[in-house]
Amino acid sequence: MPTVSLSLRERSYTIHVDNGYLDRVGEFAFRAGISGKAALVTETRVAPLYAERVQVSLEKAGFVVSQHIVPAGEMSKSLTCAEQLCRELARAGHDRSSCIVALGGGVVGDLAGFVASVYYRGVPLVQIPTTVVAQADSSTGGKTAVNIAEGKNLVGTFHQPALVVVDPTTLVTLDTRTLAEGMAEVIKHAVIRDVGMLGELRQIGMEIGLGFSLKTLSRLPDLMARNIGIKARIVEEDERETRDVRALLNFGHTIGHGIEASVPYGKIFHGETVALGMRAALNLSVSKAGLGQADVQRVMEIIDLMGLPTVLPADLQTDVIANHLARDKKFRQGHIRFVLVPQLGQAYVSEDVTWGDIEEAIEALRTPFSY
Amino acid sequence: MPTVSLSLRERSYTIHVDNGYLDRVGEFAFRAGISGKAALVTETRVAPLYAERVQVSLEKAGFVVSQHIVPAGEMSKSLTCAEQLCRELARAGHDRSSCIVALGGGVVGDLAGFVASVYYRGVPLVQIPTTVVAQADSSTGGKTAVNIAEGKNLVGTFHQPALVVVDPTTLVTLDTRTLAEGMAEVIKHAVIRDVGMLGELRQIGMEIGLGFSLKTLSRLPDLMARNIGIKARIVEEDERETRDVRALLNFGHTIGHGIEASVPYGKIFHGETVALGMRAALNLSVSKAGLGQADVQRVMEIIDLMGLPTVLPADLQTDVIANHLARDKKFRQGHIRFVLVPQLGQAYVSEDVTWGDIEEAIEALRTPFSY
Repeated sequence: MPTVSLSLRERSYTIHVDNGYLDRVGEFAFRAGISGKAALVTETRVAPLYAERVQVSLEKAGFVVSQHIVPAGEMSKSLTCAEQLCRELARAGHDRSSCIVALGGGVVGDLAGFVASVYYRGVPLVQIPTTVVAQADSSTGGKTAVNIAEGKNLVGTFHQPALVVVDPTTLVTLDTRTLAEGMAEVIKHAVIRDVGMLGELRQIGMEIGLGFSLKTLSRLPDLMARNIGIKARIVEEDERETRDVRALLNFGHTIGHGIEASVPYGKIFHGETVALGMRAALNLSVSKAGLGQADVQRVMEIIDLMGLPTVLPADLQTDVIANHLARDKKFRQGHIRFVLVPQLGQAYVSEDVTWGDIEEAIEALRTPFSY
Repeated sequence: MPTVSLSLRERSYTIHVDNGYLDRVGEFAFRAGISGKAALVTETRVAPLYAERVQVSLEKAGFVVSQHIVPAGEMSKSLTCAEQLCRELARAGHDRSSCIVALGGGVVGDLAGFVASVYYRGVPLVQIPTTVVAQADSSTGGKTAVNIAEGKNLVGTFHQPALVVVDPTTLVTLDTRTLAEGMAEVIKHAVIRDVGMLGELRQIGMEIGLGFSLKTLSRLPDLMARNIGIKARIVEEDERETRDVRALLNFGHTIGHGIEASVPYGKIFHGETVALGMRAALNLSVSKAGLGQADVQRVMEIIDLMGLPTVLPADLQTDVIANHLARDKKFRQGHIRFVLVPQLGQAYVSEDVTWGDIEEAIEALRTPFSY
């Protein structure tokens, strides 16, 4: 039963991780000092799979529960959908004494988290992530977001959850592509903070090609807890990304976001663009920060084993990607701030990367990778 | 040049108050460590009066300024309008290094404050309030809000400004009814925290009936600073209204909100319902907390001198008001929490007030007040 603690003064909380924990959400919430009414927010794909179990668990712990189901998919991450949810919550009688329980992947976590941060100027939030990326990364740390037409995640808040419950068995119902894209963030954690995790990831990469075995499943709680621990330590150091610590989590995301913004939504998954972005960032780390070529090979093998892409779609123009990059919100006041890895397990924010370097790194993504 | 400081660790800030300070906004912002790009948010009535002066002041201090004008009136306090503003800001090139400058009354302060709290997960906010209620009360303290169909201010955040600049000369352009409604919050501050202010308010009440004289104007900076000081001390003690301190500011607002929710928007002004709510709360304070009848007379005379109403419109049903009250967000989990005044200048949150008491107090608002 791995447990991770995140310490942020009065905003501290616990992340409980184990197979089967969906049925213990109510108990953990009660122990965390949450009680009363709960608004269970989930989406159309997740609801039929897991909502009933979570609701029963909450009711057993004395909660009065209402369910609120949004359409699956990125379109729900909007202010329109947030307003709709707030109105539903008000009609269901929720007030400042209620809590919001977010059950689902990144979309539900970001949206319900945003609503929890603004409804009655903030109510407690319980995160129950059901995808790899939400479990290993986005449900911990307090970032919430919705999209506007001008860009993804341009509107949001920092609102730490009061509790996170991670049940890796929910990953069994993911399709292989969604599973793989989540692994991109796990690989990222290893590359920037925990080189020791790479052996484990190589093993999972080899197993995952054969389908999701019980053996793999039994190792997931420890793997998720290890990833959440990495994220938690970074958030403790730099909750609001005002120093250069939380920014390290953007490794692979700079060029990745440029690619993501250049294709119609959904054509390439977020994690897939991160995989491509990591390949580019690893190459830049070789030329700019002295990373060894063997280390690049080691990471690229795992990216490949997980079924993540290593080559840019041929119809994507480099200058289109670069133009989207120039509008990236991570480029504070026009400076390029790029995360580099001098050796595996360590990362820093560099200002030495030029537009020319970036265009070259994008071009290099057209060559097939071999190892 | 009165100055009020509000201390909340890393969220501390200064409120500068004096006639003519509209022209020094840029200088104060620079001194507060704010620089770069500024999005000046204001509304259609205020823009032609004061936007140019504020923009010039900001530009003189080195800011690059874009203007964003929303329709005057409560309808602009919506998530739709907030989204529209965020989109405009993005198109104008604002990012996490920009600041938002809110120029206007409560609507602009609440809306632009909300946008500042969610755009790029929070950017610095400068408040330049131009009405009595915004200057004396709402621009200090960090509450932001928008409305949803189910209720006013049900969505919002706590986002402290980085700077507040109060120029009482802007009050000269207010119509008498808007001026009077703001004075209701000033009277409230005196009743709950500063009985010594009542003499000053009686004097202003007598002058205000004769029009806005230079003599009155010369005394406003001190009066506003005194009010802001009261608000600032309360916010320091209880930033997020989790103890029973900030709740004291709800004096007169409980029954007041019930009245406000019972009439078409705009028929009775917020401050006018607060005046009626204060009369009811003073009467309840006599029967429940031992307040003297002479003290009630003293406050009611000032309410009357300011031109605020003391009698309920005849067509308003008591049970309609009471029903709206039951849905008030200040009634945590169904308990009635009512602010009473045992003697002028002191207040506490009571749980001794029953629905019967409240209905009786509403009924008593039908009798003309005489002193």
